[in-house]
Amino acid sequence: MKLLQDKVLNEGIVLSDQVLKVDSFLNHQMDPVLMKEVGREFARLFEGEGITKVLTIESSGIAPAIMAALEFEVPMIFARKQKSLTLREDIYVEKVYSFTKQQSNDVTVSKKFLFPNDKVLIIDDFLAHGEAALGLAKIVEQAGAQVAGIGIVIEKSFQSGAQRIKDAGYRVESLVRVASLSEGKVSFVTEAVH
Amino acid sequence: MKLLQDKVLNEGIVLSDQVLKVDSFLNHQMDPVLMKEVGREFARLFEGEGITKVLTIESSGIAPAIMAALEFEVPMIFARKQKSLTLREDIYVEKVYSFTKQQSNDVTVSKKFLFPNDKVLIIDDFLAHGEAALGLAKIVEQAGAQVAGIGIVIEKSFQSGAQRIKDAGYRVESLVRVASLSEGKVSFVTEAVH
Repeated sequence: MKLLQDKVLNEGIVLSDQVLKVDSFLNHQMDPVLMKEVGREFARLFEGEGITKVLTIESSGIAPAIMAALEFEVPMIFARKQKSLTLREDIYVEKVYSFTKQQSNDVTVSKKFLFPNDKVLIIDDFLAHGEAALGLAKIVEQAGAQVAGIGIVIEKSFQSGAQRIKDAGYRVESLVRVASLSEGKVSFVTEAVH
Repeated sequence: MKLLQDKVLNEGIVLSDQVLKVDSFLNHQMDPVLMKEVGREFARLFEGEGITKVLTIESSGIAPAIMAALEFEVPMIFARKQKSLTLREDIYVEKVYSFTKQQSNDVTVSKKFLFPNDKVLIIDDFLAHGEAALGLAKIVEQAGAQVAGIGIVIEKSFQSGAQRIKDAGYRVESLVRVASLSEGKVSFVTEAVH
């Protein structure tokens, strides 16, 4: 997605060869017009998949997910992140490890909102090692529902997440794929033209 | 806002005479079409105020705030909630007490995104004692910017927040005003017709 690549080039800050900071339009301040376009692009990519729910995780996933859900006119659910929970009957829980924060969180979704006949589009802002996306996919499967696909705003293609998601049998679509952050510069994966 | 009152009546769960649970369309699962209407209504209410930024707090404020920001075509900023922080030069911090969770959080906004010429619309999902909204207003004033108004999705009018905000000199507009949750029933504030 050209618009998003330009934003990353113009406003992204390379903090290290592993970390890209995009807090001017995605992770703290958000550009609503760009988010609407992001939602439209996810809708285009996953059109015809019969999506019935969009699932994301708080907080940065919420804006792209609500815009995608608006296009499909289906409910959006944001999973909660908590330190660690006493066992509860009414929620699905998965433990998700954050490499950035070096800690595990319990990610939870109420059992009231996912059903076996749901086809769920999972949306997240970043894909690095795939922990969050795979945790959400496990929650969908706990509910007996189907993961229709995983949509990512920015994929760090030099980390293992995209491959892990594909290996788990899911379709992943990333709007921007970062090949490298080395030498303080963002370079993108060059797509083969079909 | 009639649409929202109907949602509260049909899907809201009265947990006590203080607590209304609306996790089917606002606090966990979200209705994107309703959120778009909520954004439109805030835009209508604060039209002509010269809004340059929308500010909210993670997580449930993000969807209504991004929809309002989309209408105004201005950036949205979501403040972060953290346990407690070591002092940092690059962020505005306010301590906000949550009566529900009975704990204080540091609410933070990067200094990069608020300027003295900004006119900021503050959006939040719930208004109870006004702690979050007033904390955000203090951050706007720390930046030397102007609070153009405070937009609330659901106000619990039997708690002190709305009055505290008005006493502090801010304009508050709530889309739904709950007069009481007693006897397990939601009743709304009856507006005087002008």
